[in-house]
This record gives sequence, C-alpha cells and structure tokens, in this order.
Amino acid sequence: MANILGIAASSGIAIAKAFRLEHPEYEISKRSVSDADAELAKLQAALETSKGELEAIKERTLQEMGEKKAEIFQSHLLILSDPELIDPVKDKITSEMINAEYALNEIASQFVAMFENMKSAYLQERAADMRDVTKRVINHLMGVNFQSPAEIREEVVIIAEDLTPSDTAQLDRNYVKGFTTNIGGRTSHSAIMARSLEIPAVVGTKEVMEVVQNGDVVIVDGLEGNVIVNPDDATLADYRAKREAYEAQVAEWRKLRDEATVSKDGVHVELAANIGTPNDVAGVIDNGGEAVGLYRTEFLYMGRDELPSEDVQFNAYKTVLERMEGKPVVVRTLDIGGDKELPYLTLPKEMNPFLGFRAIRLCLDRQDIFRTQLRALLRASVFGELRIMFPMIATLGEFRQAKAVLLEEKDKLVSEGVAVSDNIQLGIMVEIPSTAVLADQFAKEVDFFSIGTNDLIQYTMAADRMNERVSYLYQPYNPSILRLVKMVIDAAHKEGKWAGMCGEMAGDATAIPLLLGLGLDEFSMSASSILPARSQIAKLSKAEMQELATKALDMQTAEEVVELVNAIQA
Amino acid sequence: MANILGIAASSGIAIAKAFRLEHPEYEISKRSVSDADAELAKLQAALETSKGELEAIKERTLQEMGEKKAEIFQSHLLILSDPELIDPVKDKITSEMINAEYALNEIASQFVAMFENMKSAYLQERAADMRDVTKRVINHLMGVNFQSPAEIREEVVIIAEDLTPSDTAQLDRNYVKGFTTNIGGRTSHSAIMARSLEIPAVVGTKEVMEVVQNGDVVIVDGLEGNVIVNPDDATLADYRAKREAYEAQVAEWRKLRDEATVSKDGVHVELAANIGTPNDVAGVIDNGGEAVGLYRTEFLYMGRDELPSEDVQFNAYKTVLERMEGKPVVVRTLDIGGDKELPYLTLPKEMNPFLGFRAIRLCLDRQDIFRTQLRALLRASVFGELRIMFPMIATLGEFRQAKAVLLEEKDKLVSEGVAVSDNIQLGIMVEIPSTAVLADQFAKEVDFFSIGTNDLIQYTMAADRMNERVSYLYQPYNPSILRLVKMVIDAAHKEGKWAGMCGEMAGDATAIPLLLGLGLDEFSMSASSILPARSQIAKLSKAEMQELATKALDMQTAEEVVELVNAIQA
Repeated sequence: MANILGIAASSGIAIAKAFRLEHPEYEISKRSVSDADAELAKLQAALETSKGELEAIKERTLQEMGEKKAEIFQSHLLILSDPELIDPVKDKITSEMINAEYALNEIASQFVAMFENMKSAYLQERAADMRDVTKRVINHLMGVNFQSPAEIREEVVIIAEDLTPSDTAQLDRNYVKGFTTNIGGRTSHSAIMARSLEIPAVVGTKEVMEVVQNGDVVIVDGLEGNVIVNPDDATLADYRAKREAYEAQVAEWRKLRDEATVSKDGVHVELAANIGTPNDVAGVIDNGGEAVGLYRTEFLYMGRDELPSEDVQFNAYKTVLERMEGKPVVVRTLDIGGDKELPYLTLPKEMNPFLGFRAIRLCLDRQDIFRTQLRALLRASVFGELRIMFPMIATLGEFRQAKAVLLEEKDKLVSEGVAVSDNIQLGIMVEIPSTAVLADQFAKEVDFFSIGTNDLIQYTMAADRMNERVSYLYQPYNPSILRLVKMVIDAAHKEGKWAGMCGEMAGDATAIPLLLGLGLDEFSMSASSILPARSQIAKLSKAEMQELATKALDMQTAEEVVELVNAIQA
Repeated sequence: MANILGIAASSGIAIAKAFRLEHPEYEISKRSVSDADAELAKLQAALETSKGELEAIKERTLQEMGEKKAEIFQSHLLILSDPELIDPVKDKITSEMINAEYALNEIASQFVAMFENMKSAYLQERAADMRDVTKRVINHLMGVNFQSPAEIREEVVIIAEDLTPSDTAQLDRNYVKGFTTNIGGRTSHSAIMARSLEIPAVVGTKEVMEVVQNGDVVIVDGLEGNVIVNPDDATLADYRAKREAYEAQVAEWRKLRDEATVSKDGVHVELAANIGTPNDVAGVIDNGGEAVGLYRTEFLYMGRDELPSEDVQFNAYKTVLERMEGKPVVVRTLDIGGDKELPYLTLPKEMNPFLGFRAIRLCLDRQDIFRTQLRALLRASVFGELRIMFPMIATLGEFRQAKAVLLEEKDKLVSEGVAVSDNIQLGIMVEIPSTAVLADQFAKEVDFFSIGTNDLIQYTMAADRMNERVSYLYQPYNPSILRLVKMVIDAAHKEGKWAGMCGEMAGDATAIPLLLGLGLDEFSMSASSILPARSQIAKLSKAEMQELATKALDMQTAEEVVELVNAIQA
C-alpha cells in the first residue's frame, strides 16, 4: 500500500484498477527520401485520418459537454487546415527531400516556441493545442500505436503524466471512474474538465506514474487530494464507506435543487453562479442557482481576431437572460488587461499589469469598445432581469463617468426607438481597497456591491495571487479582509442596497459561516458549489454566525480565524 | 512674451538671459584608416583628456555636493578604464582598420542596448552613464567643440533638451540661476540635482528648446512650473516681486532652524528627515531636522559587487547615529526587490514585482542577509538613539517572525560580550492596506508605526505609481487614504504608541493640515521640506485642523478634499 499526495482537482472518490495512459516517447529522426510526392501523400493521409478522428471527438464533446468545450477541437481542426503551418511543411519536404514527420515536427516546434515566448496566456494555450494536434499526426505518420481513452471498456482509474485536451474529451464516465496525473494544478485544463465531467481527480502528484503499475488497485480521493495504491482491506473498506457517504451526500444535495437557501434560523440568502458563456447557464439551472451573480464577458472577446460586434454581444446577453427566465443576471463589463490580453488589442507592456491599465480604466479610455458593449447590454435588457456591474472601480469619479456613458447610450437607444428596460440595477465590483474603505460614500450612488475577493485580497495584502513566492500572503481569512467585507456589507445595508460576493471565497465552506454572519446577501460561486453551500447554510444559524463573525473581526491572524470556524464546524 | 508649462522640479524663481546648452548631433561614419597605431594613439589621447576632465569634475562635485554625488563620476572614470569596453574597441580598430570614434560608438552602443534590455533600474542608469561618457570621448576624437556649463561666466538660465549627470555637476550657482529642459520629471536625475543645488528648475516642458533663443530673457518659476520667455515689463516686475517674496520666505524659514515645531495652539510635533547615506545627515542638521525618520539602507547594498559586510554596515549606522548626536534615527531594514534590484542577488523575474517577493518577505527567506544587517544595527545601537523598522509588513505573523530573529541575534551578541542598547524601539512601515486596517492589533505589539504613503496609496488604489496610464489614481487626498491614516494613528494612540509618516505626503503642504488634524506625531520628509513645514505648522491650530480632517474623512472624492484644504490656506 502506498499513499501519494496531490492536489484535489475534482470532488468524489474513485476505486478501480489502474490504466496507465502513456503517450509513447520516440525520436523523430531526419531521413532522406527519394520520392517527395510519396512523402506528401503520406502527410496528406495522416492529416485526413487525424481530421476524421478530431471531427468524431468534437461531435462527441458537443453532445456530452456542450459547445464551449467542443470549441477546443474546432481550433485543432483549424490548425490542421492552416496553410501557414502546412505549406512550409510541404515546402520543407520537397526542397530538402526529407521525411514528413521530421518536417512537420520542425515547423510545428518553431510555432510552439514562438507562441510560448509571447507570454500571453492565450498564445500559451495555442502552443499546447499545436503540440497536441501535431503529435496526433506524427503518431499516424510513424505508425505508432497510441492509446485512446475512448477505447477503454472496463472500469478504470487513469494514471497519466498529464491529460491533453483530446484525452479528456474522450473520457467516458461509464468506464473512467477517476484519474490522477503527475503534473497540473487546480486550474489546469484537465482539472477543469474533470469537474465539468464530475469525475474524481487528483493532479500534480509528481510521482503517480513512477509508482503505479497497470492493474494496481487505486483509490483516487478527490476530496482530500490523496491517491492510495493497492490499499489493504481495512483501507479499502474505509474508502468504500467514504465513497458511499459522499454519494449519499451528493444525492441529498440534489434534493435541494429547487429549494430556497435558508439558514437554520430562517434567514434567506441568494446563491448565484459565476458563468463565462451562455452555455454555462444549463449548469446553473441544473445546480439550482437562483441567479447569475457574475457573467464574465471576457470570453466573448477572446479566441477571435477582432472585437465582437454589438450584435454578437447582444445575442449572447439575450440568450443568457432568456435562459435564466427572469432570474437576475449580473453582467460585468469588460475586464481585460492585466494578465488577460487580447491578441488584436495591442496594449503597452506594463511593469505591474495587476496594478495597471485594465478593466474600467481601459474602458473609460477606449470608449468605442465600452459603448458597443453597453449598447448590446441595454438592447438585451428587455429579455430578463439585467444588472450591470463595472469592474475595478477605485474612485467615485470613475463610477460617475461610467454611469454617464451608460445613460448617454441609453438615451441614444431610446431616441432611436429601441426598447430598453427602466429597471436595470447598476453596481460595482468591490475589489480595490479604496472602494471598500469608502463603501459608505459609494453606497449612496450604486444599486449594489459585489465583492471580488480574488483581487481584493491580492491588493489588500499587496501579494500577487499568481506568484508562488508570496502565496502565503493570499489570506481570505485574514481579519483585515473580513473587516473590509464588513465595511462593504454594512455600507450597503445602511442605504438599503444589497451586497454580494463573486470571488472564490463566496463558495468556500470555511468562509460561508463568516460571510453569513457578516450579513452577505448574495453568494456567487461556481455552479457545482451551490448545492453544497445551500446544504451548509441550512445547518447554520445566522444569529450564531453573527457572534462568530464578531469574534473573528477582533482576531489577530488568519490562522486564529480558521481555528475558530473549524471549532464550530467540527 | 511666451508662457510655457512644465513640471516644477526645484523651488525658487530665476530671471536671466537664456543660454542654450546644446549637445551637437552628428553622424559618426565609418572610415578606413591606413595606420592603426596612429588611430590607437588618438583613442588613447582622447581617453586621457576625458579622464582628466572627469577627475576635475569629480573633485569639484565632491567639494560642493558631497561624496554620494561624486560617485557618479567615479563610475564614469571606471567605465573609461574598463578593459571590457576598451579592449574590444582597440581590437576593432586594428582588425578592421577603421576609425576610433566609429569603433568606440559601435561597441558602446552594444553595451547600452544590452543594459537597456535588462529592465533593471540599476542597469538603465549604467546605460545612461555609458552614453554620457562615450559621447565625451567621441567629441574629443572628432574635434567637436562642445559646450561645458563649467565655462559659463555670466548670469544665465540654461535651456536644454535634458541635462546629463556631467552637465549638472558642472553647474555653478553663482552663474547658473536656473534651468529648464524639454524632457524629464520630478524624480529625474537633473531634477534631483537641482533641488540638491537649490537652483530653480522647470523640467518636462516639451518645447522650451524649440521656443527659446540665446539671449532671450527667461523667467523660470520653479514654484509653479512655469517658464516665461521675454516677459513684458509688468510681468517682469511681478516676478521680481515674487522672487523677493520667496527669498524673504526662505530667510524667514532659516530662522526656524533651531526652533521646535509647534502648532499655533501649542501642540508639538516632530519633523524628521528621510536619508539614504551618512552624508545626508549634514543636510538634516542644516535644515533643523529633529530626527531621522527614515534611513533607507538600500544604498549600502547598491553599486557594489557583493553584499555589504557586517562591518561596512556597522560603520554606516554608527556614523549616522553619532552625527545625529542622540536624536532618534529610524533605520528601515533592507527593502530590496520589486523595482529595486541588486546585480549580485539574482531573483526570479516576477510578473508584478510591486506585489512580489521583496523587503521583509525576502529578508525572512534570506535570513543570512537579514541577520547580518540586524547584527550591524544592534552593534551600532549604543552610539545613539536607534529605532529599527521593518518594511512591507502585511501580517502580524511576519512581524513576530522578524522580531524573533532580531531577539536571537541580540542574545547571541550579548553572550559574545558585545554591548547592545536595551532601549531600541521596534516598529513597522504601514504601507500595505491589510496592516492599516488591522493597526489596532499591530499596535499591541509594535513600538511605533511609520506610514509609507508611496506604497500605501499604490496598493490601496491598485495603481502602479510608476505607470503613467493610471497616474490619475495616485490620490494622496482620496478620503479612503485619509481614513486608513486615521485608523493607524488612532490605533497607535490607543496603545500609547506613536505614529509617523515617511512617504512623500508627509512633506506636502496640502496634506500637512490634514495630517496635523488627524493627530500624526512625526512627519518625515526630505530635509529641504522641513523648514517650510515648520513654518506652515506654526500658523495652523491643531484643534481647527481636527475639525477640517473630520470633514475631509466624510468627503467623496480627492478633489473635494483638496478644495476644502485650499479654502483654509487661501
């Protein structure tokens, strides 16, 4: 029996035989060929076979996981049809009289290196796509027999170095009970796919491929981030019981799908979901979300060559509003810049992008972009309960300016005879310390607050949340953060407004008792966290949590706060 | 008459004839030479002439401006003796049989490009030095007659594109009454030198070189940031009166040199100075500083090839303590990282260095560096009134850890029989929002606070203070900043501790009434601001300023606060 620690990436417990998914490593050597045309024909055949496979995978992904996830394979298909990649490969074959796999690998590696040097998250992803898709073609060219997860027909736990997007898309929940990898983190592609498929997963174990053999019995504990290899009988029995308890709990949670969220002492709060695309709405409804608390509109601007038109945006907003059937939808206006770049929008390089020209700062400067989005939103407003939220507001001046632009666009639309709702709530993200500290003044002018804890914590602690060397300072439970949250909530209530939260903290089981106690009105989280949160809140008394929160506000360190909360939840 | 707006870089008013200081632009073309030895001899002669000039400038700078400023020319001299630069130039001359100025320019440009690409402030400066010094040699090689500010023998205002370090070092206050440039900002090299020389200056005008001719009468208004060209008689009279009033005021300020700082209603506050090296103490005493409120120890670590030894540090700290003759000296422990790099300390590149691994974060990790500094401080503590301050403290845990290391080193020294003071106050910089918000908890454990507004403002507003695109968010008077300052001061007083401020805001005439009203105990600023601040405070009633501050805390925007303060100071 061996116990391997990793990162809990997707909840649940899987117990099954190990299936090592290996991508064979091989040398791609350079060979002279005498017949270039034959080599070109081989390349063409491998390309066609690969395209056929990708079409099938794409179709399957579309059925099982929706449009958004299927887009990955659409971009793989585009790569294989891209003359910028394929023409130089063909040239290389004929001019140098060499083998196709070598030529393809050379040219593709140049693209990969170029993309990777660009330091843009978008292009880094393109590099991964390029590697994944050319590997497929080269496998065919070299006649390498590679494993396809789609062909698995018995219950297994997959063990792998990492899973590529095409691997994950081929996972069949009926057979693949869980997976565990050497590399990756909670936000890596494979982790996100696992949560979306609801397959238990532990990633970043560093050594699972070195320790586990085919046929070993493996437990993947996606709750704790543990992998147990060849458990003894007692351990196996423990984990079977743990799995049953978890599945019972999931079933229990499902029953809460159509229930309101009410504390033990009868206080209602709203549980909303964070979404990125109209396709995510299905998951919100499926998980009993009472609202969309954060619609991140950045995805509309990504993965394309130019700014999305007003109509493209209008259709997306309208779809979300319609699908939510009158439930509130909080749309955040464009939050680009910082670590989020757009290939077609050249922004100056910044020394500290997280403290730079982004979100509302950029939108107030580039009003062409901002006004297009606002018009699309205003036009969509009649199809549901739209709320508009500005990100990265640091001063009242910025809010007033943004509001003025919105009202101008509204007046223009009305004078053009376009229907616009008169009940659009207008709020701000509170993610900058100055705004939290001055929330009482903001509350006089905004309709609502939504606290963005990811950024609020990083600015309040002056610690980049992506920088591992200062990750010990990312402290959601630091009393200073709780005090800022309290300032915002109290300020809202004093003016009869509501306060929500849409950072990761809102769905965190340790934070929820404190937030309930502080009086938070709306909790917006990933859809899969809603039912567990509803279940947790039903067991908590708001009055008692108020006492708990009061104690926490007067503590000295985050560690003390966590101890306090753990004591009541034990 | 023309009026040109720029940036007020050094106070005072100058009225004199314009002297255009031009660095001639010329092509450095490549020529074949038949006698390489003759070319090498020419190079050698030009190097020697340049070295002689630089020795003279260095000597003069040392006499008039002290050791620190003279170091610039020491590094210029080092460049001209550096075989890494000179040997490749000689090689190029002999191997390619080309002219010396072309060879030197080629090689030097490579170094400049390399330094500039390094993105380190330290190396950027080295690039400027390299350009400045090779230009001097090339001028000699080409027989170009270039202007030397040292040769000016009549009263003038210098007009220039920019001033190089060697230009500024040659300015003689008896003749150069002021200067104005096209480029630069308040913190550019020439601006700093102007303040140090007390020559009125306006920089960053963008057009003064295009507008002003030699012999034009020019007024440089370093108070308002105005340049007036060929003023009419009325304007000239106005500015002469203004100059007299300013000079009278300066004389009035000088009388306060040995006075205590007391408000109109009899409340004493302490005016301290920020310093960077032991040589700065003379200016502190000359300007009537009551303490050193911030000794930045970074300079000890810069401009050298390795970490400064314990003895090197001990001597510097001892010197400052002795020269301050028992007045308090607050020493900040190493604040490196972020935008401040050390060539011999390779730190990983960070995406957002201002939110990264710097100051106390680095010192707690690299305890070898930290302990050496603490030992040097402890040993020096018996030579005066030492106070130790930790920078970038975000959590109580960090403070406790740093304090524990200090106490360990103290115990070690005591057991080694070394004398250590038992009255060392131990405080922290408050420059991270979390620490301001939790100041009441910190106040139970620290001896004092010093608010670092430069960083506190940038984190609170989430706006990089070096990034021009978000400079509108650098708002010292934003009510949120004032509220955080109040939290810190109130927290200190509740525990019987003192609260100071060592950011730029402490010496700012608009901020001083508010800070007095908020109860700040110690104001630490550049030495040249102390006497004006003492004069200003003597005219303010603390009781009235308390009312003013209370109003400001309840305002909505920075603009409103500025209006409020302007109204009472008008």
